[in-house]
Amino acid sequence: MAEKVIVDPLFRTMENVYSPEDLARLRSFAEVVWARNDPMPAEEVEAYREEVTAIIAGYWKYGSVDRFPRLRAILETGGGFPSPASLDYEACFRRGVRVLSCAPAFGPAVAEMGLALALASARQIAETDAAIRRGEGNWSHAEFGGTFLMYDKPVGFIGYGGLARSLKPLLAPFRCPISVHDPWLTDAYLRTQGVTPADLDTVLSSSRFIFVLAVPSASNRALLDREKLSLIRPDAVFVLLSRAHLVDFDILTEFLAEGRFRGAVDVYPEEPLPQGHPIRNVPNVVLSSHRAGATGEALRNIGRIVVNDMEAILRGLPPQEMQTAQPEFIRMRGQATS
Amino acid sequence: MAEKVIVDPLFRTMENVYSPEDLARLRSFAEVVWARNDPMPAEEVEAYREEVTAIIAGYWKYGSVDRFPRLRAILETGGGFPSPASLDYEACFRRGVRVLSCAPAFGPAVAEMGLALALASARQIAETDAAIRRGEGNWSHAEFGGTFLMYDKPVGFIGYGGLARSLKPLLAPFRCPISVHDPWLTDAYLRTQGVTPADLDTVLSSSRFIFVLAVPSASNRALLDREKLSLIRPDAVFVLLSRAHLVDFDILTEFLAEGRFRGAVDVYPEEPLPQGHPIRNVPNVVLSSHRAGATGEALRNIGRIVVNDMEAILRGLPPQEMQTAQPEFIRMRGQATS
Amino acid sequence: MAEKVIVDPLFRTMENVYSPEDLARLRSFAEVVWARNDPMPAEEVEAYREEVTAIIAGYWKYGSVDRFPRLRAILETGGGFPSPASLDYEACFRRGVRVLSCAPAFGPAVAEMGLALALASARQIAETDAAIRRGEGNWSHAEFGGTFLMYDKPVGFIGYGGLARSLKPLLAPFRCPISVHDPWLTDAYLRTQGVTPADLDTVLSSSRFIFVLAVPSASNRALLDREKLSLIRPDAVFVLLSRAHLVDFDILTEFLAEGRFRGAVDVYPEEPLPQGHPIRNVPNVVLSSHRAGATGEALRNIGRIVVNDMEAILRGLPPQEMQTAQPEFIRMRGQATS
Amino acid sequence: MAEKVIVDPLFRTMENVYSPEDLARLRSFAEVVWARNDPMPAEEVEAYREEVTAIIAGYWKYGSVDRFPRLRAILETGGGFPSPASLDYEACFRRGVRVLSCAPAFGPAVAEMGLALALASARQIAETDAAIRRGEGNWSHAEFGGTFLMYDKPVGFIGYGGLARSLKPLLAPFRCPISVHDPWLTDAYLRTQGVTPADLDTVLSSSRFIFVLAVPSASNRALLDREKLSLIRPDAVFVLLSRAHLVDFDILTEFLAEGRFRGAVDVYPEEPLPQGHPIRNVPNVVLSSHRAGATGEALRNIGRIVVNDMEAILRGLPPQEMQTAQPEFIRMRGQATS
Repeated sequence: MAEKVIVDPLFRTMENVYSPEDLARLRSFAEVVWARNDPMPAEEVEAYREEVTAIIAGYWKYGSVDRFPRLRAILETGGGFPSPASLDYEACFRRGVRVLSCAPAFGPAVAEMGLALALASARQIAETDAAIRRGEGNWSHAEFGGTFLMYDKPVGFIGYGGLARSLKPLLAPFRCPISVHDPWLTDAYLRTQGVTPADLDTVLSSSRFIFVLAVPSASNRALLDREKLSLIRPDAVFVLLSRAHLVDFDILTEFLAEGRFRGAVDVYPEEPLPQGHPIRNVPNVVLSSHRAGATGEALRNIGRIVVNDMEAILRGLPPQEMQTAQPEFIRMRGQATS
Repeated sequence: MAEKVIVDPLFRTMENVYSPEDLARLRSFAEVVWARNDPMPAEEVEAYREEVTAIIAGYWKYGSVDRFPRLRAILETGGGFPSPASLDYEACFRRGVRVLSCAPAFGPAVAEMGLALALASARQIAETDAAIRRGEGNWSHAEFGGTFLMYDKPVGFIGYGGLARSLKPLLAPFRCPISVHDPWLTDAYLRTQGVTPADLDTVLSSSRFIFVLAVPSASNRALLDREKLSLIRPDAVFVLLSRAHLVDFDILTEFLAEGRFRGAVDVYPEEPLPQGHPIRNVPNVVLSSHRAGATGEALRNIGRIVVNDMEAILRGLPPQEMQTAQPEFIRMRGQATS
Repeated sequence: MAEKVIVDPLFRTMENVYSPEDLARLRSFAEVVWARNDPMPAEEVEAYREEVTAIIAGYWKYGSVDRFPRLRAILETGGGFPSPASLDYEACFRRGVRVLSCAPAFGPAVAEMGLALALASARQIAETDAAIRRGEGNWSHAEFGGTFLMYDKPVGFIGYGGLARSLKPLLAPFRCPISVHDPWLTDAYLRTQGVTPADLDTVLSSSRFIFVLAVPSASNRALLDREKLSLIRPDAVFVLLSRAHLVDFDILTEFLAEGRFRGAVDVYPEEPLPQGHPIRNVPNVVLSSHRAGATGEALRNIGRIVVNDMEAILRGLPPQEMQTAQPEFIRMRGQATS
Repeated sequence: MAEKVIVDPLFRTMENVYSPEDLARLRSFAEVVWARNDPMPAEEVEAYREEVTAIIAGYWKYGSVDRFPRLRAILETGGGFPSPASLDYEACFRRGVRVLSCAPAFGPAVAEMGLALALASARQIAETDAAIRRGEGNWSHAEFGGTFLMYDKPVGFIGYGGLARSLKPLLAPFRCPISVHDPWLTDAYLRTQGVTPADLDTVLSSSRFIFVLAVPSASNRALLDREKLSLIRPDAVFVLLSRAHLVDFDILTEFLAEGRFRGAVDVYPEEPLPQGHPIRNVPNVVLSSHRAGATGEALRNIGRIVVNDMEAILRGLPPQEMQTAQPEFIRMRGQATS
């Protein structure tokens, strides 16, 4: 008899996450419980509590894992690991319950947007489009407005997790040397990846394209403050992609407004961005409304990797596509906030 | 004694084309004649006529090649082969005078812009930036406005010359299958390049990204007319990169205004684009003011390949980086315009 | 104060595994205990038992992990995970003790040998060399003795673990489509890797190059028996690389002697290969004496990844280069032998 | 009416060069004349002399090109450009007759063999195979006999023509930095190819793998003499692939016999290699009987590119796959022999 798997998309919808094919595939090897767009009521959870092998959910709202004696895996479909405040990871590690994040599903979409924003900023695509619509447009070949090409330019990554791994191959045809600051990885490991480990100051002061790609943690809140942002070169493009958490956003806005460097921003301390926020009027930046991962294809990619890994787990195999919670990272991340 | 080489940048400037290092390198193996920003006067040309080994110039304005008995090479720095109306190519072929174009210097810059425009259109980067500045911005993850990713999407190239060869590696990380329409190349050859030869209708009707990359010729004027443009899918992005010559621009403007597909345009039938041109108000297109190749780095790249190939020629070697005029293509191109 | 780490190379030597630089690096962040070429005596182990954070050893000979209350990681330097008969994996998983294998250190060396043996067989390199030394040599261009090129030929992998992942990029320039049989991985995952999942019969009957790359397990002993080996095409090359355990070696020898297909063999049921073993006289095979991974560079690579991951672990980070024992694979591998 | 094309394979056979498909394709767009395995008799040539558009032949034996008033192309299928002693190249250049070599057809096969021989030498594949057959075999993991891996090792190319371009991508997965000595190319051009230009002494003294890939010319006969071969490192592998013409073969034999370095040899001053030649007994070298390009697939590749380019030419397009004779190279090559 098939094993029982709860599917509770919570703030997402079944249709956004699962293609009909993926859902049919999941049903072919598991008994799917709930799988509706409304949150699963507590009494329904209680009814299946003792039998369920895996819970696939937008986040963790089910209390102690000890309530689920046969649980072998938690697959989150929200976009990041459940908060340690809601999920007892140590209990999961002790019991061998796999905790899996769908974050890798967003990697390609966010990386593509990172490249697109970087090029749009360096080549002034949004500015030129707006200028032509205003009846202007720079048609003189003598004046290029400081635009520059990506080929061979030094690139800096702040954070070398899944986003960085998705972005790196997109930059490969441009032959950019990449330096990386990531305190969670050893220099030796970074070198095996074909990147140059560097301290944060070096990354900021030497790169022509800087990509902020790190997962937020207790230790990197406002890491990029006035002093650090002051290190950025005047001919650089600063791309804020993973989280506003890492930046002192007021200072960033101020520096962009002063034309200290160029930039592109997809994430903000408050979203939707408040109407009166001054960055709305800053000229040297490409603004995007948290749309890097927000595509229909990326959401369906969640469903695809969840069903693939669910199949692996039910066959007694390790998952291969989602990100497995590593005890060390969970402990370091601490009480991360956005 | 060093051989004499005329350098006459004409509508360009010495500084824009030649880095100090490249100019010094040229002077190290050739006697450089003129090399000023004013056009070389006819009497000056006359003074060096009998001795000169090569002419490096923005276009050909020197009359019959038979006036230059020792001439071995013509290196143009304008961006395309001299018109057969001004230069007698058959005389050059007969005498073994190499005619070389600097067009390859622009390949990487134009290809990068092609990718940037394609991504900007598919991911709505300019539209979103403008919306945020108007106080709007699509923050809802349920609605993605038809944006889509480049990964694995079918791509079509119209023309497979230097631009296409520069663009293809930039698309490689996105794994897009590429179909190509180019009547100047055999199917067999295109297959060796890892692309799929296809007729024009197939390229237009099956691609999600269409790149117009062909060199203008007598036979491809307004090749993309109402009938052909009607074949484009509603979920496609049409990128006009090489020349407006290939398109019925009025129909293209009409179709974009109707939202039949999305697009990006860098070249226009008339430049600067007339103030009242209706495309300035069309929402479904990213507009660029002929800036794909117009970067300082691309211009300096001209100087680099000119000096490299000049060195090869004076050492008795074939040129390697500029494009050599092939008799067959020159004959086919015929009376190309615009 | 630095944490204590036992280094007990057992059947290896310190010099073979650790470069002076790697050893100095290890000593810079850990207190290294023992680190001699003689096996660590039981009483020495006992003396450090309560304090030791990690044990780096050729295999596991230290009894119950519960004897080591502060143990956080076991790093094996022999070449494969310790036998479940000697190490209680479930206790490790429960306690969160990382069990790490140095097998990835051999991947590049073994993959290179796999490619070298495959080409040597297809191009008859050893046979031709021997023929020339006998005073013969095939100098006629009309006769090529059935040699063939690797380009575009279908390749089959039996097993898709570390060796396969190291071999795949070496085949990439040859554009070979790769089909894979690996019952421990889902088809969906294999497809994400750019290979085609296939059943064993299809891999054997359709490939021109077959590589045996699987880790031995209880379920794959003599998997390639008379019936399976009969499926191999007469124009194929069969490369036995990972373990003789997977093949009925007598039948393989018989088939090669009959010229049913060509082959290359690096591993044998008994090593050194007994003097009178009939495969020593078989003409259609390249014979290698278990030398795929046996290079000085591969051994030093063990030291490199061990020290890198030891540093990560002591800094509270997850290891990145060694292979972490996955509960699912350990359970499936069961009582693997040979 | 179709244009007439002579096909005269001379020392090759129709079947070896043309697949049935390629021959049918050729007949579909040209009137094929002769196309038999016997050499075309002079009177037959005479009968078609005035009409023929192209001659596809194993070498040039047809006298003055002026005998063929409509001739537009000569496509050689022997493996190298016709000797200037038999063909008047200047007349061809003046008239615009394309002279094309099938050499590129052999590039992939020779490059594969170059890699195979280099790996066979570095990993001692032929020696080990022979040892096992003698009842020996090095089974000890403590002793590796000086074998080494290709990964990251410096590679030197002598000559950067078609063979080098085919070999370079095969080495890419091994990440070898490549230095190149080629006096026929500028340093600037070589740098654009991602290799490091170097003088001959540097290439010989710094590389772990040295590949001799140059086309023979008047100026490179015995280029690698006692003094130059003395520069090779004791831990290097020397691969003689293109022509024995470039080496003082007696000195090479002597040095290999003395164990000064390892090697692999595919070409000899006299072929077949004389029975008593001392290199037949030298242990540190892999011997191959000029088989790098001698595969059925490479010969059929000739037919494929000949038919592709014949189609291009008859359509008025430039050929794309064969090598076009460049006036500069033809003049430099001078009276090449070997």
